[in-house]
Order: sequence, then C-alpha cells, then structure tokens
Amino acid sequence: MELTLSELAEHLQAQLEGEGGTTIRGVAPIESAGEGEISFIANPRYARYAAVTRASALIVSFDFRGEARVPLLRVANPYLAFQRVVQLFHPEAIRLPAGIHPTAVIDASARLGREVAIGPHVVVERGARIGDRTQLFPGCYIGPEVEIGEDCVIYPNVVIRERVRIGKRVVIHAGAVIGSDGFGFAREGEVYRKIPQAGTVVIGDDVEIGANCCIDRATLGETRIERGAKLDNLIQVGHNVVIGENTVVAAQAGFAGSTIVGRNVMVGGQAGFAGHMTIGDGALISAQSGVSKDIPPGCRVFGYPARPAEQALREEAALRRLPELLKRVRELERLVQELKAKTEGDGHGNP
Amino acid sequence: MELTLSELAEHLQAQLEGEGGTTIRGVAPIESAGEGEISFIANPRYARYAAVTRASALIVSFDFRGEARVPLLRVANPYLAFQRVVQLFHPEAIRLPAGIHPTAVIDASARLGREVAIGPHVVVERGARIGDRTQLFPGCYIGPEVEIGEDCVIYPNVVIRERVRIGKRVVIHAGAVIGSDGFGFAREGEVYRKIPQAGTVVIGDDVEIGANCCIDRATLGETRIERGAKLDNLIQVGHNVVIGENTVVAAQAGFAGSTIVGRNVMVGGQAGFAGHMTIGDGALISAQSGVSKDIPPGCRVFGYPARPAEQALREEAALRRLPELLKRVRELERLVQELKAKTEGDGHGNP
Amino acid sequence: MELTLSELAEHLQAQLEGEGGTTIRGVAPIESAGEGEISFIANPRYARYAAVTRASALIVSFDFRGEARVPLLRVANPYLAFQRVVQLFHPEAIRLPAGIHPTAVIDASARLGREVAIGPHVVVERGARIGDRTQLFPGCYIGPEVEIGEDCVIYPNVVIRERVRIGKRVVIHAGAVIGSDGFGFAREGEVYRKIPQAGTVVIGDDVEIGANCCIDRATLGETRIERGAKLDNLIQVGHNVVIGENTVVAAQAGFAGSTIVGRNVMVGGQAGFAGHMTIGDGALISAQSGVSKDIPPGCRVFGYPARPAEQALREEAALRRLPELLKRVRELERLVQELKAKTEGDGHGNP
Repeated sequence: MELTLSELAEHLQAQLEGEGGTTIRGVAPIESAGEGEISFIANPRYARYAAVTRASALIVSFDFRGEARVPLLRVANPYLAFQRVVQLFHPEAIRLPAGIHPTAVIDASARLGREVAIGPHVVVERGARIGDRTQLFPGCYIGPEVEIGEDCVIYPNVVIRERVRIGKRVVIHAGAVIGSDGFGFAREGEVYRKIPQAGTVVIGDDVEIGANCCIDRATLGETRIERGAKLDNLIQVGHNVVIGENTVVAAQAGFAGSTIVGRNVMVGGQAGFAGHMTIGDGALISAQSGVSKDIPPGCRVFGYPARPAEQALREEAALRRLPELLKRVRELERLVQELKAKTEGDGHGNP
Repeated sequence: MELTLSELAEHLQAQLEGEGGTTIRGVAPIESAGEGEISFIANPRYARYAAVTRASALIVSFDFRGEARVPLLRVANPYLAFQRVVQLFHPEAIRLPAGIHPTAVIDASARLGREVAIGPHVVVERGARIGDRTQLFPGCYIGPEVEIGEDCVIYPNVVIRERVRIGKRVVIHAGAVIGSDGFGFAREGEVYRKIPQAGTVVIGDDVEIGANCCIDRATLGETRIERGAKLDNLIQVGHNVVIGENTVVAAQAGFAGSTIVGRNVMVGGQAGFAGHMTIGDGALISAQSGVSKDIPPGCRVFGYPARPAEQALREEAALRRLPELLKRVRELERLVQELKAKTEGDGHGNP
Repeated sequence: MELTLSELAEHLQAQLEGEGGTTIRGVAPIESAGEGEISFIANPRYARYAAVTRASALIVSFDFRGEARVPLLRVANPYLAFQRVVQLFHPEAIRLPAGIHPTAVIDASARLGREVAIGPHVVVERGARIGDRTQLFPGCYIGPEVEIGEDCVIYPNVVIRERVRIGKRVVIHAGAVIGSDGFGFAREGEVYRKIPQAGTVVIGDDVEIGANCCIDRATLGETRIERGAKLDNLIQVGHNVVIGENTVVAAQAGFAGSTIVGRNVMVGGQAGFAGHMTIGDGALISAQSGVSKDIPPGCRVFGYPARPAEQALREEAALRRLPELLKRVRELERLVQELKAKTEGDGHGNP
C-alpha cells in the first residue's frame, strides 16, 4: 500500500500544507516514525516532536501552531484522522477462518449462522445461537441458550454462561467472563446463604469488553452493557449494573451491584463505585475515584470519596499547605498570648 | 410454580398483612416486578418504591413503616426471606450432566467420585481426586495431586494447580486461578532470584471464589481460605495469606503475602492490604481502604491509609473546610498584625 | 535430602553459630517450623519468634542481635540465603513431560524446538515458533507468528495473541493474556471508532508475569516488558507501555497507555499510572498511589495524587491534626475579637 500525501489529504478531507507528492507507505508513532511514514499529534505533550520527527508527514489540528519540518495535513480531529489512516494501512485484524474445527464440541440443538468461525476446543452448549460471520476463538465456552449476534469476535478462552444475550459487532477479549453469578449472600447467624442468581446479562451492539473482565449476571432481571459502550481490561461489573450507551470505562474500574451508569460517561482507571448509585449522563469520573454518592449529569468528580473536581482540587491544594498552616497557627497563638498579656497589663495599669 | 401469599407466608414464617389469597408466580426486583410477582425491601433506598410498585406483594421488615399499596409479608430479615423465595422459584442453577465427556483428558491414576460431571476439554492430572457429584465445567485444569471434595462446582476455564486441596460444596467461578506461584524474589545485585513456591493452597468447605480471582500458593506451608468465606471477582490473595471463616471480600480487593484475616471480617471492594498484617475478627474494612497496620477485632476502618472510621470521617469533614480555614487564618494574621501595631502604639504612647 | 548444619553453612558461605552437627531435613516458616527444619528471619517483624521457634536452626543477618534458642547461620542477605535453601530442598517445580499431547492442535507451519512439552488442548497457530524445552501447559493459545524462546513455562489457559515475541526463561502464569488489543477509540459525534491495534508486545528474557495479567499490544510499535522484570497477578499494562529491566510490580497495579517505566523501579500493589508518564530508574511507587505526573529517578512517592513520600507523610500527619486545628483557630478568632474589642475600647478612651 502506497499513497501520495495529496491522495491521503483527499481521503481524510484534510488541508494539505507542503509537498503533496510525498509518498506515504505506513503510519507510526511520532517518536519512531521514519521515511515514508506519516504520524500525528493529538496530545499537546507530543507537539515538541514536530520539529524533530523523521516522519515524512504529520496529521495535526487546524489550530496547531508548532514548528514542523515536514508537510502537514490539518484536520478538525487528528485522533480520528489517525484512526482512519491506521485502518487504511492495517485494514483487518487476524480473522479466524470460517468453519468449525473438528475438536469443537457443538450441541446438536445449537443454531449457527452463515460463515461462522469456530476454533479448536470451543464448546457451544444446547440451545445457543451464534450469528452470521461471528468468530469464536479457541477455548471459548458458550453456555446453554446463549445468543450471540452477527459479526462478533470472541477471543480465546472467553466464558459466556447460560442465557446471556449479546448483540451485533461485539468484541470480547480473551479470558473475559460474562454471566458469572452476582455476589449475593444473605446472612443467617454466622453463615451466609447464597442467593440464586437467576437473572442474566444483556450486551448491546458495538460493545467492546476487555481481557479478563467479569460481568456478573443479575440476581433477577438483567445486568446491561448498552450499545456502543467500551470497557477496557480487568473491569468488574456487579449484578444488575447498567452501563449506558457510548460510556467508556478504563481498566480495573469496578461497579458494585445495582449501580446505574448513564450514557457518554467516562470512567477513569481503577475507579470504584458503591452499589445502588446513579451516575448521570456525560459525567466524568477521574481515575481511582471512589464514588459513594449519586453523581449528577455532566459532573466531573475526583478523589476518594469522589467529589466535584474543582472542590477536590481546591482541597488538595489546601492540603499541600497544611503543614505550613500548622506553623502559622502556632505563631498566631504565640502572638495572641503576647498581645493578651500586654492588653491585660494595659487594662490594669501595669505595663 | 404458583403459590398463594398465605402459603408463602407459612413457608417464610412471615406475618401476613393483606389478602392471603393473592397468587404469586415469581419474584422480581421492586422497580420491574409486575402482576403475580413478589418483591422485597431490605435497603431503605428502595422504601419509596413501596407506594408505586406493580408487584402483587412485598416482603418487608417488622419495623417497615412506609406506605404500601400491596399486601405485605413481614419478617425479621427481608434479605434472607428474599433468598428463600428466589430459591423457591429458581430452584437450581444449570447443572453439568453427570459423566465424563470423551474429550476430557483424565490421568489413569486420578480418582473420581460417584456421579461426577466432567465437561469437554477438562484436564485432570495424575493423582488428583474429585469428590462425589462434583462438576468440572469445560476447559478446567486440575493439576497433579489436587484434591476436590464433594458437591463442588468448578466453572469453565478454572485452573487449579498441583497439590491444592479444596473442601466440600465449594464454588469456583470461571477463569479463577488457584495455586499460582507466590510472588517471591530475592535480590542479588541487580537481578532477582525466584524463590521456589513449594507450599500450597487449602480451601475450606462452603467457600465461594469469584471469576478471575488469583489465589497464590504459599512459599512454604499453606495459603488458606477458611470455611464459609466468600470472595467476589478479580481478588488477589498472596502467598501464605489466611482468610478466616465466614469472611466476605468484595471485588478487586488484594492481600499481599502473609497477611492473616480473621473470621467474620467484611472487606470492601478494591481494598488493599500490605503484607504481614493481622486483621482481627469482625473488622470492617471500607471499600478502597489501604491497610498498612494491624486492625483490632471489630474495628471499622476507612481511607488511605486506613484508620478508624470515625477518625477518618472527622478528618475528611475537616478537609472539606480546609480551603475556608486558610482564609480564616489569613484574616486572623491581618487582625493580629493590626492589633499588634495598635498595642505597640499604645505601649509607646503613640496612637 | 538431609544435611548437617555445617554442610549447609558451607553451601551458603554462612557463619555458623552453634552445633554444626545438627541435622536439617527441610525448610519452613518460622511460626510453623519444627524439629529438623531450618527457618529464617529477614523481616524484623519476625525477630521475636527467634526466642520461641521450634526450628532446629535459623538463618539471620550478620547484625541480628535478637535472643535465639537455636544454632544460627549468619549471612549478608538472609532472604537470598533462604531462596537457596528452598531451592535445595524443593529443587524443581512440577514439569510437564516433554512431547506433544495428541489433543493439542498444532499448525503444520509452526516450528517447535527440541524437547518442548505441549499439553492437552493447546493450540499453536500458523507460523508460531516455540523454543527448546519450553512447556506449554494445557489450554494455552499461541497465536499466529508468535515467537517464544527457550526454557519458558506457560501455565494453563494463557492466551498469547498474534505476533507477540517472548524471550528465554520467561514464566507466564495461568490465565494471563498477552497481546490483547490496546484500548483506543476515536470519538466521532456520539460514537467511538476503534483504532486498529496494529502493534505487538515484546517480552524480554527472565521476565515473570502473574496469573490473569493483561498486557495489551501497541497501537503501532511495541509494548515492552524488559529483561528481568517481574509482574505479580492481575496487572494491567496498556498499549505502548514500557516496563524497564528488573522492575518489580506488585499485584493489581495498572499502567495506562504509553507510560514508560525505568529500570529497577518498585511498584506497590494497586498503584495506578496515568498515560504518557515517565517514571525514572530506581523510583519507588508506594501501594495504591495514583501517579499523574512524571517521577524523577530514585524518587519515592506515595498517595493519591502521588507525591514525594516525605511530603505526603508530612501532609498526612498534618491531616491527622486538622480537626484539632479547626478548634484552635476558632479559639484564636474568639480571643482576637476579645482583644480587638478591648484595644478599640482602649484606643477610644472607653474601657
């Protein structure tokens, strides 16, 4: 694959600055890009590389003002343009060839769509349905009555337990577990009685779920990951949680049971949510935050316990000054005692 | 399955308020329950639903005083009663049929109890023993000389390494790893020498271990999860840790090596424990706490570093007021300087 | 295996104090060691056991001054000496027998070294290469064109995706996922477009990776775990991260995309790193820290957000005194008002 920079500008609807005849044969990170490769600047941290990169061209935003030694393609959203360029040069992830490997164990009552790809040692239990062109990589377990839509990619050793329903174009990374029992025990004296977890998990279209995530089934009803939500690796989603449409969750975050997360929420890595919380649409939850109260729509929170970001930052800044404040108060106490002694002296006619 | 409310009241030894002839055909969460379904209120957050639910009846506590539009069953512990009702209407999780799937690889020296169920692609290594009626779901690995008791459920793709011993009625969710090497390296100059992890893991009766948990084997001796302990998903248990009887641990908590946790302890999600700590019986460790000191029995701790909850909450409340305190101290300093100027003026006869 | 204490002293180049003829048949933790077993004290927390242990001998440091009732072996580094003793008495972890199990599915184009051991239900895809004596335990997935060096141990159900390259003597624990897609999506309106993750993962010699870890492949280029690094369980390593040589990372830590960690760094459990950070060689990151700024070489940081440990500890200590400080300031305000009233009275001639 080889394009001129002019051709690429047209493909991206970008504004070209510099030599349009430059040949582009690949895409690379700005630090390591070389001759014939295009790179991009989306994060201002990387602007300083513009002057020194060995890339043959750069994608930048319309308002990029850094010094650059190479031709530029200006666009509104450099990261999105980068996505398109990567897709152009790396068109397709590795696909599992269509067909059913002879070592897969498929129950006779399972229904398989057209051109499904089922790898070695996969198990598909009774009554499961697999949509057209869906790929089940080696070692996956698809439980009884599971439904998986069209064009899904289920990577190796994923476990999807009974009755879970999965939409179209869903990607589930290796080792994830969907539909494990919710964590519910009722105490009776010193021991705990397990509450049967009779509900299920429903995953919408275009969801992506990271490696080794755990999505628990509902006690009753459904745990839901709604359309377009993206979950990074090692995330815990408790029973009856709802993750709204196009919400993005970074790695190792955790949601306790029955918490409802709105649409277009962004959740930072290792953030934790108590159970039964409601998180409004468009909220921003910073990394490692501990959310123990409802969060209104659009609110940005931070810290443990999570509180509005401006407040948390103000408190953090104040905390930095606390050791010095202790000294200042000690000095004030000394001065006030001195003044008091003097004033009382004055009051009684003794200096 | 269909019962009258009177029959259900008798089954639960509940006090019936309202029409005993009401037919109950299922159980559902209070927000979504409809005609013919019973629901419950254990958490006061949900009391407001009592007036609007479409459920046909509600289980509530003896002291519930909310307004309700449907018949009530009053009990001492509504959550426990709910557990029984769920069990009544959803009597049995999906069972793996007894028998050994032909694709399972069982060493000739392994000893299998009566009515064991061993799914496709399971591996049982030499000298392993599997108790009566235990289910090994597809893709599990049972290492050499592992012992598993009666009536256990080992979900798909669980890995249990050599010599681990597991009691009766233990449930291990998908993807969990039991008996991985403890994390021990001795530094020699710049490099690390691995300390062979020659110990094992012992898991007591009635323990439940969540999906993708990791329980490391002891360096020497045993890592122990004692009878009745319940672990949620994605938990890390380091080498030589002991988790006491009926202790409950929420998701993503982590225990560094050699920490000893007592009985009836409750550990919140994402809490972390340094190594070599001792946590007393009945302690309560809040979510995301960072425990770096021993915790006395019955103590409730919170925060990072974890400290007694009342103290931590007092400090947190004070922190909320810190930005304002800075201003107040600045004002005090100004006033004191003014007073000082005046007083000194007074002292020297100059106004 | 049975040695005299003199023989053991010679093996460890230790200084013997006490009866050299004592027979040693094993090694055990100090609390549980008995007749014929040797134990050790590396952590001062355990010094108090020296007077009461039932071990037949103890390994201690040259400067250990505790009271001991048994013969001692004094060495510079007791933990390292312990490592050697454990290795002596527990010479070899369980090995998978060499050979290829008939249920393994090996692509004809894969190249296998001498004496490789490939367990049941392993999948090795086209073009993969496995080094001499490497062990692939049951249920592993080795993707297309993966390279694994000599003498590696890949425990059950590990997933290694396409084109990942792994050095020699690498140990990967059960359930780990190497080469899952990096988490990269470009927003277009309300929806997210996946950025193809076209890079890979490179793992150096002598690396150890814990159970259920996730190491994401680079978007472009490489995610790298360099020679001798040791990762505990359930760790998240994002796309394009670099973990330097001999760096040690405790369980459940997480690194967001493009963060570069130097050599000989120590990272505590559950610590989190924002993306695009640079962590200097020899830095110490305490458990649960949240790193959102670059960390200079050799710096020890603590807290959320992570800051130099001395500063953080000073601030933490001050925070403990904050509730009391609030009271002191209130008292100061009262006193100053009193003084002001008096002084103003004085100033105007009215008492």
